[in-house]
Amino acid sequence: MIRLIIDTMGGDNSPGANIEGALNALADNPDLHIIFTGDEEVIKRHVSGQGLADASRIDIVHAPDVITGEDKPTDAIRMKKESSMMKGIRLLRENDDADGMVSTGATGSLVAAATVRIGRIRGLHRPAFCPILPTMDGRIVGVCDSGANVDCSPEQLVEFSIMGSMYMKAAFGIENPRIALLNIGTESEKGDALHKEAYKLIAKVHGDNFVGNMEGRDLLSGRYDLVVCDGFSGNIMVKTTEGTALSLLKKIKSDIYSSGIYKFGALFLKKMFEEEKEFMNYQNYGGSVLLGTEKIIVKGHGSSNSTAVRRCVEQAVTMKKNGLNEMIRAGIEEWKEKADALSREE
Amino acid sequence: MIRLIIDTMGGDNSPGANIEGALNALADNPDLHIIFTGDEEVIKRHVSGQGLADASRIDIVHAPDVITGEDKPTDAIRMKKESSMMKGIRLLRENDDADGMVSTGATGSLVAAATVRIGRIRGLHRPAFCPILPTMDGRIVGVCDSGANVDCSPEQLVEFSIMGSMYMKAAFGIENPRIALLNIGTESEKGDALHKEAYKLIAKVHGDNFVGNMEGRDLLSGRYDLVVCDGFSGNIMVKTTEGTALSLLKKIKSDIYSSGIYKFGALFLKKMFEEEKEFMNYQNYGGSVLLGTEKIIVKGHGSSNSTAVRRCVEQAVTMKKNGLNEMIRAGIEEWKEKADALSREE
Repeated sequence: MIRLIIDTMGGDNSPGANIEGALNALADNPDLHIIFTGDEEVIKRHVSGQGLADASRIDIVHAPDVITGEDKPTDAIRMKKESSMMKGIRLLRENDDADGMVSTGATGSLVAAATVRIGRIRGLHRPAFCPILPTMDGRIVGVCDSGANVDCSPEQLVEFSIMGSMYMKAAFGIENPRIALLNIGTESEKGDALHKEAYKLIAKVHGDNFVGNMEGRDLLSGRYDLVVCDGFSGNIMVKTTEGTALSLLKKIKSDIYSSGIYKFGALFLKKMFEEEKEFMNYQNYGGSVLLGTEKIIVKGHGSSNSTAVRRCVEQAVTMKKNGLNEMIRAGIEEWKEKADALSREE
Repeated sequence: MIRLIIDTMGGDNSPGANIEGALNALADNPDLHIIFTGDEEVIKRHVSGQGLADASRIDIVHAPDVITGEDKPTDAIRMKKESSMMKGIRLLRENDDADGMVSTGATGSLVAAATVRIGRIRGLHRPAFCPILPTMDGRIVGVCDSGANVDCSPEQLVEFSIMGSMYMKAAFGIENPRIALLNIGTESEKGDALHKEAYKLIAKVHGDNFVGNMEGRDLLSGRYDLVVCDGFSGNIMVKTTEGTALSLLKKIKSDIYSSGIYKFGALFLKKMFEEEKEFMNYQNYGGSVLLGTEKIIVKGHGSSNSTAVRRCVEQAVTMKKNGLNEMIRAGIEEWKEKADALSREE
């Protein structure tokens, strides 16, 4: 049995989308058990509204308070103990058989609480986010870290490369992920001191799977399965990709409306434009997984609908089934030994 | 008379596009004088081929060698003195009446040579690049720095904000540019130590013109005239924007070809798609100006066609006519006095 905690609050469509999405995942996964945190009455109403046959795999833990993006993470942890997020984190910490948590709530508070209360995998500096983006040839690409760590050391970038490639294997079955390092040019000596040093270390750890530096323009090319980056530039890249795609589709739409002939032609392309929009909608590719905590944490987009939440839950199930955290633990251990050997060599 | 040096080599369409573009600008600007550097015979042939009436405003300086992206900038400066780029830089340095240079050659070598040989405006740490991008509401936005400085101090980010806003005024007539700082969130306390400190300083220098932090997703929103960033994340943002837009347009094109109905509908939209592609083609918005050197340096895209080169030349003329460097000099001086006062206060 896999036990997941679902934080029902904190998203734009909470709690409805969170509850509905989780219940849909539950119906399809007979070995899944769900613990909802949030307003007990509201959750009960939603659950009974779904007319679920098997209620024995659902628990509800009352948590009336909600954390918002306005709350400072340190305050949220200390002051909002009765919130759906913090109560969820406490359940995850205190119950050995709880495997993970899915939340669409405030990112900063979730990272802080998960890091402090759940703890990181031994040997790791800090957990990192790894969202998934679609590539133009119909594949996917992971980006690690996308914003959990604004100041990084070269060693942290190595850790991101290890966690990220294990994730691409365990969650998406990509056996030998092609790893790139985000940089301002493709030549090996490009970038600042951080990226020059990280380049050397990642090459040593991943060998042929490391394909070198990548520029921002090539993220969607399909030539890479995982892009390693410091959390600052990773965040810039991911948000810029999303913003550019949506802006351009919006512009095309408004240009179409500017002319009768365009409007006529677009009638035949309506389905395609809808598909492009869906294609660029990151929610369809699951949540942004926080890699490196002792238990699984999946962060769904704040604007997640029920399908997006369902994907997040299924992602957590797959990660647990395929033993992602055990893989990361072994990978980090191996790297630490290698790092010790490298430092003895010097 | 405005005297500009045109490096005819180093671009994908050199020397033809460089020469043709410069000559077209010359025809429209009676007070422009051009000095071409490159292979004298080749330049002569191109110039006479254009059948120009007034050849008295053209000089040619023979420089047979070419710098490529493969050359290390420090080597290029020392070893390739007979190249079109280095000879151009030497002419710019040695001739008091030479006002600026336009090049489509290797960026790293150009920045290094301009910084070392031409020198920076007094008080500045280092020059910075400021490319121009189109926004979705038909305006433009400048990005400073987009890659000349990978390691930055908060004071440098202030300098970028001053140079960039003077540039938006002098080259595009934007009187009070709305300035944003590129960051991973919009709240004032977001980001690493560099960006937190830069935020405070830029707010002090620009007052109401500083509108706060901007996320990567909002670059094309039209809500900002200038985005200030460290050269590393600025480079990531600009290249990601370009890459995403071109990838998406390419995907739409290939999706259209996948279906007969789409193909039929797209016939009516052909002109619009061409316009979208032109709209996202940065060449149409001029070159990336290197701000902060004692003389004007405009770097055209490596793939510049003759129209793009022409825009670069016209940009240099406007900057010179409107006294951009004098404005930057005064702005930096004022900031240095302010910085001294601030440090005395502490």
